[in-house]
Amino acid sequence: MSHEKLYRLDLGDRAYDIHIEAGSLCQLGYAMRARFPKAKRCMIVSNTVVAPLYLAQVEGALHEANWDTQSVILPDGEVHKNMTTWTTLMDALMASKLSRTEPVIALGGGVIGDMVGFAASCYRRGIPFVQVPTTLLAQVDSSVGGKTAINHPHGKNMIGAFYQPQLVWIDPCVLQTLAIRELRAGIAELIKYGLIRDAEFFAFLQRNMKGILSLDATMIADVIYHSCRHKAEVVMADETEQGERALLNLGHTFGHAIESMTHYQRYLHGEAVALGTIMAARLSEQLGFAESGLEMRIRALYRNTALDVEIPTFTVSEWLDAMGHDKKNVGSTIRYILLREVGVAFVCDSVCDADIDTLVQSFQ
Amino acid sequence: MSHEKLYRLDLGDRAYDIHIEAGSLCQLGYAMRARFPKAKRCMIVSNTVVAPLYLAQVEGALHEANWDTQSVILPDGEVHKNMTTWTTLMDALMASKLSRTEPVIALGGGVIGDMVGFAASCYRRGIPFVQVPTTLLAQVDSSVGGKTAINHPHGKNMIGAFYQPQLVWIDPCVLQTLAIRELRAGIAELIKYGLIRDAEFFAFLQRNMKGILSLDATMIADVIYHSCRHKAEVVMADETEQGERALLNLGHTFGHAIESMTHYQRYLHGEAVALGTIMAARLSEQLGFAESGLEMRIRALYRNTALDVEIPTFTVSEWLDAMGHDKKNVGSTIRYILLREVGVAFVCDSVCDADIDTLVQSFQ
Repeated sequence: MSHEKLYRLDLGDRAYDIHIEAGSLCQLGYAMRARFPKAKRCMIVSNTVVAPLYLAQVEGALHEANWDTQSVILPDGEVHKNMTTWTTLMDALMASKLSRTEPVIALGGGVIGDMVGFAASCYRRGIPFVQVPTTLLAQVDSSVGGKTAINHPHGKNMIGAFYQPQLVWIDPCVLQTLAIRELRAGIAELIKYGLIRDAEFFAFLQRNMKGILSLDATMIADVIYHSCRHKAEVVMADETEQGERALLNLGHTFGHAIESMTHYQRYLHGEAVALGTIMAARLSEQLGFAESGLEMRIRALYRNTALDVEIPTFTVSEWLDAMGHDKKNVGSTIRYILLREVGVAFVCDSVCDADIDTLVQSFQ
Repeated sequence: MSHEKLYRLDLGDRAYDIHIEAGSLCQLGYAMRARFPKAKRCMIVSNTVVAPLYLAQVEGALHEANWDTQSVILPDGEVHKNMTTWTTLMDALMASKLSRTEPVIALGGGVIGDMVGFAASCYRRGIPFVQVPTTLLAQVDSSVGGKTAINHPHGKNMIGAFYQPQLVWIDPCVLQTLAIRELRAGIAELIKYGLIRDAEFFAFLQRNMKGILSLDATMIADVIYHSCRHKAEVVMADETEQGERALLNLGHTFGHAIESMTHYQRYLHGEAVALGTIMAARLSEQLGFAESGLEMRIRALYRNTALDVEIPTFTVSEWLDAMGHDKKNVGSTIRYILLREVGVAFVCDSVCDADIDTLVQSFQ
C-alpha cells in the first residue's frame, strides 16, 4: 500500500527532493547518507511535543546509517518562534561545533522548520538542512520552498531568509499522532492550493474531506504529493517572491494580522489563514472581482473541515495597523491577494482603507 | 585629478557596481536614485565615530535627490559586532517600516558593513543595501563580495549570510579623517592581495608605501581599484567560498584566533590579520612549502607600514581551541591558507597539531 512518491524541486544547484512515503521515517539515515556522503555528524532540532514521539525513532534511523547525532529540544508553539528561542538554537549550534558540511534536521511542524531553516542559513553563513515535517501544514506547505523566519514583536516572519533545504522527508504516518486541531489547520493550506490555482483540486477536497480527515492512507499521500507539487511549481517559477509566489499568501495578509492581534495564542497559523481567506473572498466580491457566492462556497468547505469561520472583532485601525507591517507591502500600499473565482487568484494593489473599513464593518 | 573608476562585479542577477571617485560622497543621492528608481525612502546606518564626520553630508546628498531618510547610529568597534547591537538594528528597521524595495545604507567601516549587510539580508527576508565604506579596510576588502556577519562569543563572523550589496560607493577622500592606525590596518589587506595572487602588486606596495601612507590621491585610488578588482575576481569565481575564495582568508585563521583570545579589544582586524599572515608564512616555511626568507620579506613590508609584528603569547591549546571554531574548518580538521611564494597561496588540510605546537614554540 505504501507508495513512494518523489518530486524534485529544480532550482539549479539548489535542487532537492521531496520524498513522500508512509513509514519512511526509519529510512531517513540512509537517505541522508546518500545525500551527504562526506558528513559524519548531524544535529536534530525538535520540540517538546514531537521529541517524545519521534526523536528516538529518528535517532535510531540515523545511528543505523552511522550518523553521529546531537539533539536540541525547543519549546513548542508559534509564540516561541522568536529571537530568544532562535538565540538558544544558535548557541546550541555553536556549542556543537558543527562544520559547514554537516546538516541540521528540523523534526517538527512549521515553527521548527522555519526556525531551524533560518538558523541553518546563518550559522557559518549557511549549512545544509533537512526538513522532516511532522504536521500536515508543514508537510503540504512550509517545509517546501525555503522561506525561513522568526517573528518580531512588530510582525510575523519579519526576520528570516530565503534558504532552501537539501532534502524534504515526509512520512504521512506521523500524522496519526497529530492533534485533530492541527490536522484541520493543515487542511486550510490544502484548500488554499485549490483556491489559487486548481479548481479541480478544490472540488476533490469538497468530495473527499471525510476520507482526508480520517487519514485514509492513499488519499492523504495523494493530497500531500499534489500540494507539494503545487508549492514546488510556484517556487520554481518565483523563488524569492517577485511575482507569482505572492499568491501563496492568499488569506495571509488578514491572517497574519489576526495572529498578531491575538498575540499568536488564540489561533493556529492555518486557522488564521482560513479566516483571512474568508475575508479575502468577501473583499473580492465587495470590489466586484468575484461573483457573489464565492465566500459561501469557501465557508462551506471550511465548515466541512470543522474549521472556525467566525471572524474576530477588531477596529479598522487595529486591522490596518496590524497589516501595515506585513512583508508583502511595497512602499506604503498594503497588497492583498484576491480571487476572481475558485482556482484564480491575483495580487491587488488598489484596495484603499475605505474598502477595508466597509469589509470590517460587514463582519460586525 | 579625480578620476572616476568603475568595476562591475558580475554575479548574474545580483551584479553590482563598485564606484571609486574622490569627492563622490556628495553624488550618492543621484547614484541611488538611478539604482533604485522606484524607492522613496532609505535608512542610513552609521556609528558614533563616522556619523559626526559624514552623516550630515550623506543626508544632504540624499535629500538633494529627493530621498526621505532615516538614520540609526550604532556604537563603534568590533566588540559591538554582536547579537545585542544587531537586535537594536533590527528593531530600528522594524520601527522604520521600510518596505522590501527600500534600501539601507552602511556608512562606516567593516563592522558597520558586516552588521548592516546581515540585517538587510534578514529584514523581510532581504532588502537592498548599499555599502559606503569609510575605512581603507572596508574600501579594499569587506565592502565587496557579500560576506556579512556578526560575532558570537564562541567565534568571529559565525552568524551571517552571503548577501551582496546592490552598490558599493567609495570616496577615497573620507580616508583623510581616518585614524592612522586604521589606515595601517587597511594596508594589511592590500598586502594580502599581493601575497595571494599578485606578486607585482606586492612589489608595487614595497616601492610605494610612503605615498600610500600619505594618501597620495592617484596612488590611493589606484590601490583601491586594484584591490577591489582582485576581490571581485575571486568572488565572481567562487561566491560562497567552495574553493578559491578561501585564499582571501590568508592570515585569518590565526588572526581570528588572536582577535578572539584578546576579546576583540587589543587589535584591529587588519592588525590581527597581519600577525596571522606572519604566522602563516612561518608555517609555510616550517613545512617546506616556501623557501626561507618569505616571512622576512613580509615582515619588512609590515614594518614599513608601521604595523605591529610581535606575535602575542598564548599556549598551544589556547591557539588550537580558538582556531577550532573557525568557519573555514571542514569536519574536525583546521584548514590553513599557506604560501608557496609571494603571489601564490593554497589551502592546506594536512597541518597537524604538532606542527602548530612547533610553530607556537618558535614565537616564544
